[in-house]
Amino acid sequence: MKGFKFQGIAAGIKNNGKKDFGIIYSENPASAAALFTTNKVVAAPVILGRKRIKKGLCQAVIVNSGNANCFTGEKGIKDAAETAKIAAEHLGITEDLVMVASTGVIGAPLPMDVIRKNIPFLTENMGQNFLGDFSEAILTTDKLSKISEKKGVIRGKEFSVTGVAKGSGMIRPDMATMLAFVCTDVEIPADMLKLSLKQGCNRSFNRISVDGDTSTNDTVLALANGASSAVVKDNQDQVIFQEILNRVLLDLARMIVKDGEGATKLAEIIVKGAASADDAYNVAEAVAHSNLVKTAIYGEDPNWGRVVAAAGRSGAALNPDKIDLKFGDVFLVEKGAWAGEDAEKKAARVMKQDELKIVLNLNIGNFSDFFVFCDFSENYVKINADYRS
Amino acid sequence: MKGFKFQGIAAGIKNNGKKDFGIIYSENPASAAALFTTNKVVAAPVILGRKRIKKGLCQAVIVNSGNANCFTGEKGIKDAAETAKIAAEHLGITEDLVMVASTGVIGAPLPMDVIRKNIPFLTENMGQNFLGDFSEAILTTDKLSKISEKKGVIRGKEFSVTGVAKGSGMIRPDMATMLAFVCTDVEIPADMLKLSLKQGCNRSFNRISVDGDTSTNDTVLALANGASSAVVKDNQDQVIFQEILNRVLLDLARMIVKDGEGATKLAEIIVKGAASADDAYNVAEAVAHSNLVKTAIYGEDPNWGRVVAAAGRSGAALNPDKIDLKFGDVFLVEKGAWAGEDAEKKAARVMKQDELKIVLNLNIGNFSDFFVFCDFSENYVKINADYRS
Repeated sequence: MKGFKFQGIAAGIKNNGKKDFGIIYSENPASAAALFTTNKVVAAPVILGRKRIKKGLCQAVIVNSGNANCFTGEKGIKDAAETAKIAAEHLGITEDLVMVASTGVIGAPLPMDVIRKNIPFLTENMGQNFLGDFSEAILTTDKLSKISEKKGVIRGKEFSVTGVAKGSGMIRPDMATMLAFVCTDVEIPADMLKLSLKQGCNRSFNRISVDGDTSTNDTVLALANGASSAVVKDNQDQVIFQEILNRVLLDLARMIVKDGEGATKLAEIIVKGAASADDAYNVAEAVAHSNLVKTAIYGEDPNWGRVVAAAGRSGAALNPDKIDLKFGDVFLVEKGAWAGEDAEKKAARVMKQDELKIVLNLNIGNFSDFFVFCDFSENYVKINADYRS
Repeated sequence: MKGFKFQGIAAGIKNNGKKDFGIIYSENPASAAALFTTNKVVAAPVILGRKRIKKGLCQAVIVNSGNANCFTGEKGIKDAAETAKIAAEHLGITEDLVMVASTGVIGAPLPMDVIRKNIPFLTENMGQNFLGDFSEAILTTDKLSKISEKKGVIRGKEFSVTGVAKGSGMIRPDMATMLAFVCTDVEIPADMLKLSLKQGCNRSFNRISVDGDTSTNDTVLALANGASSAVVKDNQDQVIFQEILNRVLLDLARMIVKDGEGATKLAEIIVKGAASADDAYNVAEAVAHSNLVKTAIYGEDPNWGRVVAAAGRSGAALNPDKIDLKFGDVFLVEKGAWAGEDAEKKAARVMKQDELKIVLNLNIGNFSDFFVFCDFSENYVKINADYRS
């Protein structure tokens, strides 16, 4: 992908010696669009970012892990702005073209001495091939780096979309402790980019769940620098771009769930036949967030009663006598009747796989929705009981 | 407490040899009121119970554990009605004075041969002193029996309120897999009893959380047989009765949380200074249901950022700069500012205790609310991953 450089280093913000400080740099000011957390408690970089994104231009992104710069008051906002300012000086660009993002522990001030000391090295050692280093530098409890790259063609011109993300806990729709950065060399106006990003997130990051908590720092930022000769001019071009973008975002979203804290399995709940779009969403959301469903999946127990009970408490219209429920290809409930012990035995075998698809048809309407989520193991508890100690 | 008899036996509905079949019997038809689950998927005994409670009279309650008689279709409703009918015949009372309740696995039919065989013994061996046996017979994953008894005086006449409950998972407001039975020898009309029961549940069972799932079978049933000479005639009498009833219900609710699946600690979130009653409720609810808050409590980690983040995603109006947050007596946040590492060290000591009180003052209004909840340990996962195997 053309015109982007990256870097990621261990600056010493984390105390475990791992990478914690990174940069994305575009050779020219890129069209930019972003989505931020819906949490009312927001981190300083989000406050700054909301302002800066308005003009739809961005050339560099500075990201640190190990410290969320959240609940840090006026000082936190100053620290975020100073980080951007120092980076801008070293990069020789204007300050308002730099965005910042942070992830990590809430409450502690950003270690500005470490930040100041490391910006020169970071900005002087960028390269096209350091995306992997950047992807490591933004991780917290993640076990794996998350990168997805896809290519498309608009009017005979090839373009790339590369996404990089972090996040494995505090994951829930409407953004979670999740940072995602999308770089593309397509040329697209900022307002079209924003629309595409929103649509893409609604079918990816807003349809995943690890633990039902929403973070204070979530940010999805897209940069389009036009370094390829592919240009998004009209709706038809945008459809092509959207498809490639969606694939990158859904890829990243699934990687986040797969790397969910303590996760051993990836699951998908597909709701069909709901009476309204809201009902379809609410049922999928209730099932994906049910600790009892998640522990049953972990235990490879085809405990379909928990799926039905979660649907029942979702608030959606439903008639128990009409429900069909499948685990993989195995019907466990057909027209509201239990399929019996043999079906459960078959379903138990399906559940031994790494990925599970649950299809719940309410059979009372035409609306569908889905959620991708993970199971819930003892390790989730271990990770989160020990996070700061 | 006068005029009530109980029994609880191991009939063989559970396959582990534990008690699973019980009865509450009032010597005369009692005023009765009940609250049921808000889940749209409801068990057969709830469907039957909703009809029978309308007349406000009940003389016997048959309860089984090990099988929820839920998602069992028309047959389930017939089975519930037949259970009541056989019991009524043996007790020599009319069928419509018998209520039934079930708790356990969803989907399997009630083993009617076992039910039929054991009703004679159950009804022929009741006694005032068998409340303990009854309390055991209604348990599922509970580790402990839950009984609370309080006495009050109305116009010089003493009365008793005795409550017995079960439930340790699938616990959430608006009823959870939770059965609770309240027996009192006060005389009170059914409509006043219903009002008192509603008010009491709103400050007890509707303010607790173990895991955020709502069950299909939840039932709280109150019987008032007037066997003492205390009579609730007017509002003033009702206030006295309400106070005693509230204490019994809150006692039972706290026992349920303490016995929460995998729970090691009892926690209470008290929200103050909210802009509306809904806001106060929503913040308390979000904190009590946050897996991240619950795992932090388990890990004895004063991770106040997770409490603030949960409040922020609750939808309630809040200004981060005005928040005060205390763990026990230790301020962790004052007027939106972090109290520092020493405060966290003090709070970590507070968290070593078995019970933790978290007070979050939003300082923007006059509304308060609370939730009682438990921490979240590896054992919750173990219990629920293995429940049926």
